[in-house]
Order: sequence, then C-alpha cells, then structure tokens
Amino acid sequence: MKKYLFLYLLLSSVCAFADDGSRLWLKYDLLADVQQRDTYLKSTQFVAANSSHPTIKVAVQELEMGLKGLLGKAPVLVQTATKSGGIILNVAPNSPSTLPQDGFELFSEKGNIVISSKSEAGVLYGAFELLRYLQTGKSLTNLSVKSSPKIKLRMLNHWDNANGTVERGYAGSSMWKWTELPFRIDPRYITYARANASLGINATSINNVNASSRFLTEEYLEKIKAVADVLRPYGIKVFISVNFRSPRTLGGLKTSDPLDPEVRKWWNEKTKEIHRYIPDFGGYLVKANSEGEPGPQDYGRTHADGANMLAEAMRPFSGIVIWRAFVYNADPKGDRFKEGYAQFKPLDGIFDPKVIVQVKNGPIDFMPREPFHPMFGAFPKTTLGMEFQITQEYLGQSTHLTYLAPMFKECLDTDTYVKGKGTTVAKIVDGSAENHPLSLMAGVANTGSDANWCGHPFNQSNWYAFGRLAWDYTLSSEQIATEWTRMTLTQKPQSVQKITDIMLNSHPIYVSYTYPLGTSHMMGEGHHYGPEPWLTKAARPDWTSIYYHRADSIGLGFDRTGKVSNALQLYSPEVQQLWGNAEKCPLDYLLWFHHVPWTQKLSTGRSLWDELCHRYYDGVGQVGKLQSAWESVKSDVDKETFEDVKGRLKIQEKEALWWRDACVLYFGEFSKLPIPKPLVPPTRTLDDVKKLTEIYHLR
Amino acid sequence: MKKYLFLYLLLSSVCAFADDGSRLWLKYDLLADVQQRDTYLKSTQFVAANSSHPTIKVAVQELEMGLKGLLGKAPVLVQTATKSGGIILNVAPNSPSTLPQDGFELFSEKGNIVISSKSEAGVLYGAFELLRYLQTGKSLTNLSVKSSPKIKLRMLNHWDNANGTVERGYAGSSMWKWTELPFRIDPRYITYARANASLGINATSINNVNASSRFLTEEYLEKIKAVADVLRPYGIKVFISVNFRSPRTLGGLKTSDPLDPEVRKWWNEKTKEIHRYIPDFGGYLVKANSEGEPGPQDYGRTHADGANMLAEAMRPFSGIVIWRAFVYNADPKGDRFKEGYAQFKPLDGIFDPKVIVQVKNGPIDFMPREPFHPMFGAFPKTTLGMEFQITQEYLGQSTHLTYLAPMFKECLDTDTYVKGKGTTVAKIVDGSAENHPLSLMAGVANTGSDANWCGHPFNQSNWYAFGRLAWDYTLSSEQIATEWTRMTLTQKPQSVQKITDIMLNSHPIYVSYTYPLGTSHMMGEGHHYGPEPWLTKAARPDWTSIYYHRADSIGLGFDRTGKVSNALQLYSPEVQQLWGNAEKCPLDYLLWFHHVPWTQKLSTGRSLWDELCHRYYDGVGQVGKLQSAWESVKSDVDKETFEDVKGRLKIQEKEALWWRDACVLYFGEFSKLPIPKPLVPPTRTLDDVKKLTEIYHLR
Repeated sequence: MKKYLFLYLLLSSVCAFADDGSRLWLKYDLLADVQQRDTYLKSTQFVAANSSHPTIKVAVQELEMGLKGLLGKAPVLVQTATKSGGIILNVAPNSPSTLPQDGFELFSEKGNIVISSKSEAGVLYGAFELLRYLQTGKSLTNLSVKSSPKIKLRMLNHWDNANGTVERGYAGSSMWKWTELPFRIDPRYITYARANASLGINATSINNVNASSRFLTEEYLEKIKAVADVLRPYGIKVFISVNFRSPRTLGGLKTSDPLDPEVRKWWNEKTKEIHRYIPDFGGYLVKANSEGEPGPQDYGRTHADGANMLAEAMRPFSGIVIWRAFVYNADPKGDRFKEGYAQFKPLDGIFDPKVIVQVKNGPIDFMPREPFHPMFGAFPKTTLGMEFQITQEYLGQSTHLTYLAPMFKECLDTDTYVKGKGTTVAKIVDGSAENHPLSLMAGVANTGSDANWCGHPFNQSNWYAFGRLAWDYTLSSEQIATEWTRMTLTQKPQSVQKITDIMLNSHPIYVSYTYPLGTSHMMGEGHHYGPEPWLTKAARPDWTSIYYHRADSIGLGFDRTGKVSNALQLYSPEVQQLWGNAEKCPLDYLLWFHHVPWTQKLSTGRSLWDELCHRYYDGVGQVGKLQSAWESVKSDVDKETFEDVKGRLKIQEKEALWWRDACVLYFGEFSKLPIPKPLVPPTRTLDDVKKLTEIYHLR
Repeated sequence: MKKYLFLYLLLSSVCAFADDGSRLWLKYDLLADVQQRDTYLKSTQFVAANSSHPTIKVAVQELEMGLKGLLGKAPVLVQTATKSGGIILNVAPNSPSTLPQDGFELFSEKGNIVISSKSEAGVLYGAFELLRYLQTGKSLTNLSVKSSPKIKLRMLNHWDNANGTVERGYAGSSMWKWTELPFRIDPRYITYARANASLGINATSINNVNASSRFLTEEYLEKIKAVADVLRPYGIKVFISVNFRSPRTLGGLKTSDPLDPEVRKWWNEKTKEIHRYIPDFGGYLVKANSEGEPGPQDYGRTHADGANMLAEAMRPFSGIVIWRAFVYNADPKGDRFKEGYAQFKPLDGIFDPKVIVQVKNGPIDFMPREPFHPMFGAFPKTTLGMEFQITQEYLGQSTHLTYLAPMFKECLDTDTYVKGKGTTVAKIVDGSAENHPLSLMAGVANTGSDANWCGHPFNQSNWYAFGRLAWDYTLSSEQIATEWTRMTLTQKPQSVQKITDIMLNSHPIYVSYTYPLGTSHMMGEGHHYGPEPWLTKAARPDWTSIYYHRADSIGLGFDRTGKVSNALQLYSPEVQQLWGNAEKCPLDYLLWFHHVPWTQKLSTGRSLWDELCHRYYDGVGQVGKLQSAWESVKSDVDKETFEDVKGRLKIQEKEALWWRDACVLYFGEFSKLPIPKPLVPPTRTLDDVKKLTEIYHLR
C-alpha cells in the first residue's frame, strides 16, 4: 500500500500537468471498465507474427504498448500461435485476396484475431485498426473487417521553412529540428510517424512549397535521410519540395530552363544523389511560377515542360513528381477563379505519367467554403491530386474550434457530372472516373513544435479527419468525430455525443460569422488573422478584399455567370444549372456566383441584407451555445484540456463578434440599410473595428 | 499488487517519454534513498504560515508539491505550529533583522524549520531554498541560513516578437501565446513563474527590445495584464519594451520628440493607462537609436532626454525606466568598442534617478569572451545595470554544450580599479561602489515553446546560473553546476562530479574552437550560425568579420592601444597596464587589444600562428573528451535526456570541426604558414568550408 502511494505520487509529480496533448489520439490510458478490460484481455493474450520486417516489428511494438496501456497487461510475444486467445499478424504477399497492397483484413479465426495483408504496411494499419477498436470500445468477437485505401498516396504537406518557422503554422515552430539533425532524433518524430500510420498516411513532404534550395544540398540530404529512416518502418515515404531555380543557386548553371540539357543533366544527377541517401525517395513537390516562385515560365516554357523534366529524372526510380496547380496572375480585370484552369487546360494529356497535378479543393485559396475547383473533371488525361488545408489559415487558426471533416466531405461528395450523375470529385481524385493508376490526397499539415502538436486541442481532430478520409472518404464526419473523441477526450457516451455535436456544428458556425452566403477572402492582410473586408489596396489586386466581395450600392457578390466573369462555364452544364440561377442557387454558394441586390428576397424570405445580418448574428450566438455545451462535459474530460478549450472558446466568441461587427458595419455602408430588428446594432463603430485590425498590422 | 501494476502501467503510458525536460530543475521526483526520505520526513510533517497572502499561498503550495513528490508524503497544513517537526513560514515586516526586504532566514528553532523574511517574496525564496536542500541532499539539522540578494532587480529580457517568433531564440517559438491571451492561461506560465521564483528572479520584460507598438494598445495591455496576474504571486514584476515612435504610430501625433509637450502628455497618459491594468507595473525597457530603432536622436535629442521623459511619466508610480546603452554607428574608420561609452559619457549625471542604463557585459555584442564594458566604473553618477545574454546567440545556440556561469563570473569578478583595487564590475553593478539605491542584472532569456524550454538540455543550466548569480554573484560556478545537476539530472555523486566537470570545461572548450586568443565576431552573417571569418561585405562595416579580426600579412588582432583605436584608454590605468602590453596581456584577451605578428612568440613558447592552430585543434579534441565523459554517466541519467545530449554532442563535434577548419584555412591565407606538426591539416579546402556556410544563407 505504501508503494502504491509512492507510485501515485510519482505519477502526479512526473506528470506535472494532467494531459498536455502530446500523445494525440494514441493515448492508451487504462480503460476504466474492468469488465471490458477482462473481455479484451481474453482475446489479446499473445501476438504472433510471420515476419520480422521492421514494419511488423513496429506493429508488434505498438500492440504491446497499446494493450499494456489500455488493458494493464502486455501480450506475450510468440513465434507462432499454438493456442487461441491471441493476435496473429500475417503478411501474405501471394494471398488470393482481392484487396490492394495496403488493404488489410481483420477477422476472427480459431479463437484468434488475424490481421492479414499483402504488405507489411497493411498489417501495421490493421494493428492500429484493432487498437482503435479497443480505444473506442468496440467488440472483438466475430471480427470480419476488410479495409483498403481509396487513395494510393495519402500525404501531408509541411509548409515548414529551413529557418524553423512554419508558414501558416499556429502551433509553435517547425517540428523538424534541422540544426539537430542528423545526429539527434527527436522522439517526437516517432510519435508523428505512429500518428500518421494509425490513419494510413503514407507520404510526407517535409519542407515548404516556397522552397529553399538548401534541402537539396548534401548537408540537408543527410538530415532528411535521418528523418526518412525514422519514418520508413511506419510505411511513410519522404518527399522534398524543390526550388525550381536550384540548378542556378546550387549547380552554378546560368539557367534553370527545363529544356536546357545542362539543367536536365543537373536534375538527373541530383535525383540519383538523393536516392543514394533515400533509396525509396517519394519524389518532388513543386510550386512553380506561383506567388513569385521561380518556374519554367521564366524561360518561356510550360508547367508540363518543367514537370516532365523532373519526371524524366525520376524515371529510373519509383518516385513521382507532384506539380501544384495553384497559379494565378495579378490581373485587376481578370478572375482568379479561372487562372489555374486556364493555364493548365492546354496541357491536359501532355504531362508525363509520373506527374500528378495537385489541385486545391477550391479555385481561390482554402476559403472556409468554396465551390469545388473547376479543374476536377475537366482534365481527363491528367492525374489530379487533391490538396486540402488542414492548418486553419482561414478557419480560425488556433483560436476557433472548427472541425473540418464536413468541409472536406462537402467538396469530395459534390457531383461534377462530367461522366454522368455520380461523378463526384472523390471519384475524380481516386482515379476511378478516368482510370488513372495513381491517386493523391494531400493535406497541408497543422503540426508544430507545441507540446500538443496542433495548437487548439480540437485542431488535432482535423489531422485525424484528413487521414481517415484520405483512407476512406465514405466515412461520415460523425463517425470520425466520435472515434476521435473517444480516443482523445472521453469514453463517457453522453459527453462523446455532446462533443461530437460540437464538432459537427462548428464549421457551419464559423462560416456563419465569417463568410456567410458564399462570401470569401475578407481576412486581415498578410497574417490572415481577423476580418478586413475594407482592404482595398495590397501588393496585388487579387490580394485585396474588394476584389472578391464586389460590394457596391446595388448589392454584394461576384457575378461569375457572364457579366463580370464567365467562370461558371468552366463547370459541366448540370453544375452550371445548379449554381447559375440566383433564385435557385444554394444560399451557401450564392455570392460566389452572383451579385445580388441588397433588397433581393432570398429563399429564406429575408432580403439579402437581412439574411446576411442574421447569419452574422446567429453565428456569434451559436458560439455561446458551443461554450455551454463544452461546459456540460467538464466532469468527463481532462482538467487541463477542458480549461484550454474553455479559454479558447472565449477568444472565439470575442473574435466572432469582431468578424460580425466588422462585416455588418462595413457592408452597411454600401447597403445603407439598418441592422434588422430584433438584432441589436453593434455598440462600436466601424472605425473601432478597423483600429482593432490595424493593431495586428503593427510590426 | 494488481493496482500497483496498473498504476505503474498508467504511469508509463501517461508519460509516453521518460523525461521531456518540461519540469526544468523543479523535478521533485521521489528520492531514491528511503532512509534519507525518512530523515527528511521527520522535520517536514507540517507547514504553518502566519499569512494568507497570495505569495505565501504559492509558497505553501510549492512545499506541498515538492515534499509530496520528493518524500512521497505531503505535509499537513496547520494554522500555527503546536508541535515540532514542521516548517513555519513567518512574514515579519517589522523584524529587527538587518536583512533587506527580499532576504530570508532559514533556521532550526524548537525542532521546527523556520523560514522568515520581511516580505512575502522573501519567504517564497526561502521555501525554494529549503526544497533545494532536499533536492541536493543537504542536511536539515541545525539550519542557520541567512540569504539576501546582492542585486535588487533580477530580470529576464525576452526578445519575443508579437508574431510569435523569438529573436535569437533556439527553443521553438515564443512561450507567450498572444492570440490565446487573455482568456487562455497556458499552464507553462506558472511553471515559468515557479522556475524564476526558485532563483529569486523578480522581473521580466515580455517582448523584444526591437519593440512593436502593439504591446501598448488596450488589446495587448489586457493580454499583458493576464500574464502579470499569473506572475504577481511569484514576486515577478512585468516590464514592457516600448517602441519610441509609439506616440506617432499609436497616438497619431506628428512627432515623438521627447521634448514635445504633446508627446510627453501622451506618454504620461499611456503610463497611467498601463497602471489601470497592472498597478505594480515594473516599467519600460527601451532600445533607442540602435540598429535602426527609433529614438530621441531622430529629433536631435539625447538618450537622457528620451529616458527622462519616460521617467517623468513614471514619477507617480513605483516603476522605472531601463534604457539600453547598446548603440553604435556604422563607421568603417571608427571602433564600435568605444561607441556606447562615447555617446553616453556626456550624459553621466543627467539621467533621472528613476533611470537605469542597461549595459551589455562587453563593448561589442555578447561575444564568447569579451573584456568588460568600459562604461562599468566610468559612470559614477549613473545607475548602470548589467545585461548578460543567456540565449546562446554566439555560444552554440542549441547544438553546443556551453555552461555560461564561468563567463558571467569572469566579467563580474574583473577589477575595474576605479575606486582602488577590488572595485570589481560586480561592485559597480550592485551599486555598492558608488552608492546607487537601484541595481539591475538582466539576462536575455533562452526560453521558448519547446517542451524542454531551452532547446539543448544543458541550456537550462544557463537560465539557472544567471538567476543564482543575479541573487548572489559570489556563488562559485562549480557550486551552481553541482546544484543544477543534482536537481535536474542525477543524484549519483560520481556522475554529479563528472557532469559538473563537463560543464566547467565547456566554455573554455567552446572559446578554443571558435574565438581563441581574444578573436571575435566571425560568425555566419545574420543568423550567426557557424563560422564566416571571411565576411567582408555586410549591410554595415561593423557587421563584417574583417572589421574585427583585422587579419593581414603581418598578423592578427585589433590594435586598440592607440595605433588603430585608443579604446584601451577608456579603462582605468591599472586595467590599461594589464591589457596594454602585448607581452604581458593575458592570452585570452590578447587579440582584443593587439595586432600580433603571426610569428610573434607568445608566453606559451609558441608563435601566434602555432598557438592559434593548437587552440583550434585542441578545442575540437576536447569535444571528444566531453563525449566520452557524457558516455560515462549513461547509467545514471534519464534515457531520453542522455540520448538527446549525446546526439547534440555529435553535432557539436561536427560544428567544432567546421569552425576549426574555417578559421585555420582562412587565416592560413594571411599567415602563409603551414599547420604546425603534429597537427594534421584539414582534409577539406577553404572553398569546401565556405560552401557549407553558404548553405545557411540560402532562403
């Protein structure tokens, strides 16, 4: 009993603070329900594996750690299963199973749990699936699970800079400690690998797409190799974002023209060199001729010329080239909406088979709600990858609770109609609609050096949701939210339900007090923090706010049906029909395509102005409901986490008010209409709100 | 027994990794020695306090947490001591004791341990001292300790920016989460406060001296108030670094001229406003007319005009104004060494009594070894505060093990002779030499958002050492190293000794392979990482390397005895004598004051060139010894910490070689002399080493 006490005290002193979030959703805390533990223990007494591959080793390790933590007893490790009541890991490369390489089966057989896959990675994914069963309280009897990824390349894109900062990072600095590498391996790299493997994420690009050439130097390849060696057993391939000017900056060549033989030679040799460090190198990720980055157009060449040159360098190897379609020119008369489509359309069919063109979910830039990018469905001869943003650049950064699964799914589930009804964006991305062998879903990571990885505790759920959807986009937002909540916050059914509801409501609420009715791009200049709908001048016209909302004395919104821009015509006729008629267009997309008079009556029965005001006010009110809902789970979640989220919800409320007042006061100057009763007009003036925004522009 | 097991597993699962360093030196792990625990338990059965002041509350809390952790049993909290065997906290404002406010007595009386002070803070410091006794295994019998701070203001300066980055920070991003404040209080703020209070640090300036005006806005004052409220019970006052142009940027005034009535009015009102948020506001820290920062000279006024204006605004309050003396003009013909002295000397006696002029330890900029700043001792009518740099901008950043106490002490113990022998820099700084009521020792913080706060695990010891020396600069570097090691790494006597030796040797070793013989300022441009002695052009001449080392065909070093600069004359005659003669000048300072011929024979019997090479080579060799010494303590320190330090020592070895090769190859081009036998010449060329440096200049 004395020892018991000491251990208890040891525990409380070692863990000065309850839960710092560093373990993400892989918590493996002892299950409270003793009976449940005993049930699970009966079928997890041993682990047998038919392979000693490093990936199987980490699968066994994970099961050991997980079961030891969750059930209080580690399984015995045996060569082969001689009795029942255990777990069998079975790598079956020649299995007749119809499952693809990474797929796995999880089934009960002769009183044992079998995890079987053609690949070691598949078995690892199955092991995590089994642990998830325990973490979420599912039964282990008569298991008969078949699971396989719908997307081949499930990838994180880190916008991490060489100097340790993270572009659009809201959780401290970069998780990659470049000055410490290659000799010091931060244990966090392993946690990172485990977290990704638990979701089936199998690729990561480790540096910002606004890329430094230094990542291609020997000095850095040694460092990247050290990272790749840590991630490899977890089935994760490393990609490098490259600076297109590298042949000049590093190679000392006079040009980086992709058609120049010396330049091609340089890339061929650099690619060979990389493979000496990383034999299973994933490939290159390229942002070219975009926002000032160098690219083939600097030499009068096309994106295809650039991408295909790198593909040629990659030909002897398994790696690929991912080329971003996020390009736009600063044209005050143009429509940024059309840029990517316009520049790439002529290149459809010209890209090397090793090239994937990575397209953002929407045509502008990760706005809280965007119509799907018109390139999806319009490039039958090109493999298009999906680029989502997990880090919440425009979605509350680290101070707003915003669960993104519904937003990801809204895009994936939208019908492009290009091959008839049911040709959803997802079907384009998974390659099935156009029979592409490759497929890619990338998420711009929200990881940082903060103890809890993602800043806002709920931001972790967006990393989780992205990974789960990249594996299987048919999972529901609710299922993913419930899983994550049970694994991360609490097992108490009532609170799980309440937290799931909070998460499912959060994105609509955020949109309501920031960008209702299809408005977009009205955030603070540069840092993108807070509202700045009045932003009229910027380094480029398409970096202002007025370029997007087009507010005037008549109304609000960007007419893309032909009067200002014909962007709507980039979509299939069915989609044009859906969004093209201001009377029928779903209100969530209305102002993306139409300039609507302030007094125009909407399907809600309210005028545009009244509806706009009501949505802003309702959004703020809903934040109050999130707060009381969170208050109601207090007793069931970790104290520190509870206080953390509670504090951030207060900030969210303050910032929601900031957005509401900024937008209704600013747009009110155009509509010349009063805040509709019973809504109470803001007590502060537009100048007050502008001053608040100006603070964040001070150095 | 089953429960015992579960708790063990709970422990191991909750604390995924052994020790992440987040608890700093306040670990309070259960003492291994059962007998020792029982002995301590006998005299720590209860805690009684004669005050319920918030500071006493946290003192009691700390004793509870500490004793519970270290001994496995929390003390009982009682109103008054009715028996022996406990701890009595006694606030005695009217005590006849000769100790100053913050001083404390710790003594045994009637079988109890009494902690007594005139102030609550003093009692808190005593409580930490008592815990340190337990952490370092000291006896609690017949206690009779009197301790009081030699410096009144013991302060950290954070160079943390509003955007979350840290200037010269090597441990992640800023620990201050401005976007989360004021509503979310990061538990780390409390750990930070405890760590500082455990050392007697009683002030902190929370933002970069390259200051953003935004810290003076209402929005930010609310945030700073929230921080001040957390730090207050721990006896820590908050200071704000201010941007001198704020009356224009925030107040909308046409000028920031310190003699303009409107400007003075603005500062008076701003200062009143700050006190509405923070009644015990510490004051302002100002970097003016330095490295491009605005200041009074922009309006033809003096530093005194600027400082005294702020002092006037502070007059109704207890706060003060700290004005930095780190100023220098870009004059290729001049000597930066003399700049601060020259600009401030005419102002001695003109500064308001509320002004402290904060002077860096040396005349240049935190070089690994500098002669003490000539201002110390030369400003009898001005209160000079000491500014040390804890963050290792030029001392290995996060990849070199460099314990700084010996460097701090080398400066403090140096004799200025200005009031006769024994007038050390310390006596100037503590105010005793010139009877100044105020005194200040500031350290530029090395804290960041990384879990272990400081990057390199041993960097924590520099925060610790700074605090201990600010309290009592007579403590030996060895005592501080031993204390810190016992509290942080291990109690095993042999390993404590070995680690103490590692620490004591580390600074000389670092100097040896970077800046031997009094060289300085040869680091990579801008980022200050790695060597760049060949740096010839920069934004300013005094940001190059050649400005400092003055290498030519004849020799090496900056002649400050009159030929190039007469800077040596800024010191007292005795100091001039000590350093003025190239034959007798201590080799550690030689090239600071003399241009020495390559072939000149030194006191070591070697020529300058040979000695230079030997020191560079010896430094690298010594890193190998640090590695084997660290290897020898493996069994006695936490596994994760061991691997962390081991990995960083490997990087240190690589970077030491980088420095050695860069410097001997570069200087060899001037000396035209071979690497002296038996030293083996570098296998790489100067170009190889230059290329390595260039990598870190790539975006």
